[in-house]
Amino acid sequence: MMRPKLRLIPLGGLSEIGKNMMVVEYENDIIVIDCGLMFPEEEMLGIDLVIPDTSYLLDNKEKIRGIVITHGHEDHIGALPYVLPQFDVPVYSTRLTQGLISVKLKERKALATAKLNVVPFGSQFTLGKFRVEFFPVCHSIPDSAGLIIYTPAGVIIHSGDFKLDYTPVGGKPTDLSRLAQLGMQGVLLLLADSTYAELPGYTPSEQVVGETLDRIMAEAPGRVIVATFSSLISRIQQVIDAAARYQRRVFVVGQSMSNTVNMALEMGYLKAPDGVLGRLDELHNLPRNKVVFATTGSQGEPTSALARIANRDHRQLHIVRGDTVVISATPIPGNEALVNRIVDSLFKQGAQVMYDKVAQVHVHGHGSQEELKLLLNLVKPRFFVPIHGEYRHLSLHAKLAQSVGIPEENTFVLEDGDILEVSAQLAKKAGKVSAGNVFVDGLSVGDIGSVVLRNRRMLSRDGIVVVIMAINRQTGKPVGRPDIISRGFVDTRESKDMIEESRDLVARILEHSGERAAEWGFISTKVRDALNRFYYEQTKRRPMILPVMVQV
Amino acid sequence: MMRPKLRLIPLGGLSEIGKNMMVVEYENDIIVIDCGLMFPEEEMLGIDLVIPDTSYLLDNKEKIRGIVITHGHEDHIGALPYVLPQFDVPVYSTRLTQGLISVKLKERKALATAKLNVVPFGSQFTLGKFRVEFFPVCHSIPDSAGLIIYTPAGVIIHSGDFKLDYTPVGGKPTDLSRLAQLGMQGVLLLLADSTYAELPGYTPSEQVVGETLDRIMAEAPGRVIVATFSSLISRIQQVIDAAARYQRRVFVVGQSMSNTVNMALEMGYLKAPDGVLGRLDELHNLPRNKVVFATTGSQGEPTSALARIANRDHRQLHIVRGDTVVISATPIPGNEALVNRIVDSLFKQGAQVMYDKVAQVHVHGHGSQEELKLLLNLVKPRFFVPIHGEYRHLSLHAKLAQSVGIPEENTFVLEDGDILEVSAQLAKKAGKVSAGNVFVDGLSVGDIGSVVLRNRRMLSRDGIVVVIMAINRQTGKPVGRPDIISRGFVDTRESKDMIEESRDLVARILEHSGERAAEWGFISTKVRDALNRFYYEQTKRRPMILPVMVQV
Repeated sequence: MMRPKLRLIPLGGLSEIGKNMMVVEYENDIIVIDCGLMFPEEEMLGIDLVIPDTSYLLDNKEKIRGIVITHGHEDHIGALPYVLPQFDVPVYSTRLTQGLISVKLKERKALATAKLNVVPFGSQFTLGKFRVEFFPVCHSIPDSAGLIIYTPAGVIIHSGDFKLDYTPVGGKPTDLSRLAQLGMQGVLLLLADSTYAELPGYTPSEQVVGETLDRIMAEAPGRVIVATFSSLISRIQQVIDAAARYQRRVFVVGQSMSNTVNMALEMGYLKAPDGVLGRLDELHNLPRNKVVFATTGSQGEPTSALARIANRDHRQLHIVRGDTVVISATPIPGNEALVNRIVDSLFKQGAQVMYDKVAQVHVHGHGSQEELKLLLNLVKPRFFVPIHGEYRHLSLHAKLAQSVGIPEENTFVLEDGDILEVSAQLAKKAGKVSAGNVFVDGLSVGDIGSVVLRNRRMLSRDGIVVVIMAINRQTGKPVGRPDIISRGFVDTRESKDMIEESRDLVARILEHSGERAAEWGFISTKVRDALNRFYYEQTKRRPMILPVMVQV
Repeated sequence: MMRPKLRLIPLGGLSEIGKNMMVVEYENDIIVIDCGLMFPEEEMLGIDLVIPDTSYLLDNKEKIRGIVITHGHEDHIGALPYVLPQFDVPVYSTRLTQGLISVKLKERKALATAKLNVVPFGSQFTLGKFRVEFFPVCHSIPDSAGLIIYTPAGVIIHSGDFKLDYTPVGGKPTDLSRLAQLGMQGVLLLLADSTYAELPGYTPSEQVVGETLDRIMAEAPGRVIVATFSSLISRIQQVIDAAARYQRRVFVVGQSMSNTVNMALEMGYLKAPDGVLGRLDELHNLPRNKVVFATTGSQGEPTSALARIANRDHRQLHIVRGDTVVISATPIPGNEALVNRIVDSLFKQGAQVMYDKVAQVHVHGHGSQEELKLLLNLVKPRFFVPIHGEYRHLSLHAKLAQSVGIPEENTFVLEDGDILEVSAQLAKKAGKVSAGNVFVDGLSVGDIGSVVLRNRRMLSRDGIVVVIMAINRQTGKPVGRPDIISRGFVDTRESKDMIEESRDLVARILEHSGERAAEWGFISTKVRDALNRFYYEQTKRRPMILPVMVQV
């Protein structure tokens, strides 16, 4: 039997699989789906961003026909400024997504050479042996798309990030009819969003949030401050609509929120009745119960407007008793503590705070179990690959698929780098390509490796001790008393005696080493071992010990 | 009017207020309620534990009549080994709590001198002008108590950590009748647990978990591995009961779980039918569907048995396909990532994993809003102080109290260190005492201050660069070329050229400084500034720069 020619390879994404980048390959043609970035996990100290490892793509550069982007969130477009300059290939997306990509590329001076193409929903374009069609899906940003990919082996459907919402705000509902039609004709492979595969039932409609905002605008005795993601344009629309209903004016606070709002207004993705949006200098004299602020900071980001307001550190906006603050988001894991601290601080200043735990001020953008089953049911794929989620989400999604009748042997839980070979009859895992994560720290991309991170981790726990030993080049004898400097290890005043003792310890080692005192390998190991032991006995801490020899 | 003589001061507890320690004072008598520890927050790098600041107590040492402990969890007893040796006072608790305190004190060699007293529920003991009575409350550890404190100004009720559960496992339900009786007679002040003041409705009964465990034991095709807290004795009881019902034997894995189980069996807080508990060496030949393991690690603790099993690093226990792992806990904020990684890894090894998001395998130990209202309703206190929660929880609890009729001016949201003065007629905030947190790092208690932590934070982000400059003591001239060593900053091989350039930069500074080259303050500032600028331009990173001058 011939080897199947269609190959699927998820790439990048830290613990979320196939989230930031997916490779679809047929003979000499490759298309890349999404090109996003991830924010570092806690133990990746000092790292700013994480992007997918593109070494497989670099090895197969000449095969790449284009990059297809499903929607405009950071985790789907954010790596383009780093990746696109390596590959001179066109990018395809819907209109708003292109707007957001342009902003990203411009920031990193990578826009001029980019070949960006806007593709309307429903029309098809050809990339090598592939034909690609965007279909609308509902997600927490307008113009989100799923993909229909016609290949010589059969049709692939890629859900993008999606949920079903029959009453979305702006945006279009997920195009179930098109999916049903394709399902009837026969779909080879479905790739579907698993982010909320843990949640039973249905994800509530955005409408629920609209109703909560409406009630808040009606009842709040004073100003209302709404914090949300700047990309959550539908939420901003709901704020504007609810404010307008109660004759409140909306003031946008902060640069990134202003940029998005202006862009979305210009492109027609956001609509504001005349006079509802105001400039901050028009604020004075407006009664407090006629004022709404829209701002970022719903994830507790320390430099956001909301964090600065909470820390009494914002130039224009200070909490007064009677303010109502709405945090219209759910903290992503890892950000809870930051958000909690902000909520506490707002309460202390006399604000009423509405957040996800106490009011329905947010719904997320991914389908829950019943929606995932519905999709599987309509599409009826021969093969199923859960994507966009951590391993447990994919496992649970695979089990859901089996519960609606996809045979277990036709569902594949992949990890990043896994190659899935697919033919009309058969699919199977077939090896692995390199698929690590590339760290961006400051200007440099990829130079931070495990040694640097291990050192940072060690330094972060118990600090560092630098031992300076001067040795006479001619005699090989120590010159003067060794010096010891520590940072992040102990309170240097309180531990003066211990540090002095450890200097004596090093001096004794040098004395007793005789002519080997100038032998670097010997001395550095001896000093390091002795100090490690001494400090651990004294403090139960293990600082990094850095011996330095100066030959004079 | 005379100044009220009854004073209430919450102490310690990071962001949770009044959780780890509470001071009640009347003239020359002080009682201390609870003496717990906290685990450090993310930015407290390298810190092992956090305990309350006892400087107020040290200043009033002669007034302290005793420490009263509500229950045996770490955050209520864990600081005793550090605090008790400072104060030669008796400790009062219920029986199981005393058992757990003894274990703690023994570990830190502080048991011999401790005066521990067991007090049965319902009996009263006198501490100076106070009379104290324990009443049973339902919480996630048996023998949990609330306190009735009779003072010359009136009765105080302290809820401890509590929920209402009419069908608890082991333990007693919260004694509502006693509370109702006191409420009828008149209660001056209620202090009540606010941990779950955000949650509407009622906290489900432990029984719900029992039913889930029962179903799992019945249906699991192979072995069942249950991870939970070793202190959650009622949960271990449920595991034993469910296992026994399906002729499974239970094997306890790990030292801390074994210790607790043995202690609880001996003291009668845990009951196991004959032959249900087994030793690991009796495991062989038992069919897989007759085996249950009970282990710790439900919070993802890296050294726990469950973490080692997930990392294929446990000596005795390896996952095989068909195993079912039950994580019977909810990750506390900050631990989610650790727990998620373990769940992912278990799924990858072919286990079925049941955790809080996908099955009702845990209920928490604190009352939700309706329970809090019920307590307020029965006790009908004149004054109300929400405790045990972060500021937002206390604020919400205060609002709940107002909703059931406690006047706003009679509810007080305190912060740690706040003094509340209470008389029969009036309560008011009256100043503040010192109430920071004391860091325990290795052997030392309290020497880690903000400088050490700031250094660790800086080191953790961009590492350190040590600059060694040798200067001739006589001539004041540099000797040889300056040396530069970095750790955690850049990949030293890839950045060799940059580091060499920076050595030249330092050499030039020394040359151009002429006779000031030996002037430490001048040179160190100049070198630090120049390197800061240079490295930031080159890398957009800001390592700690540590200049070292060696006079030879």
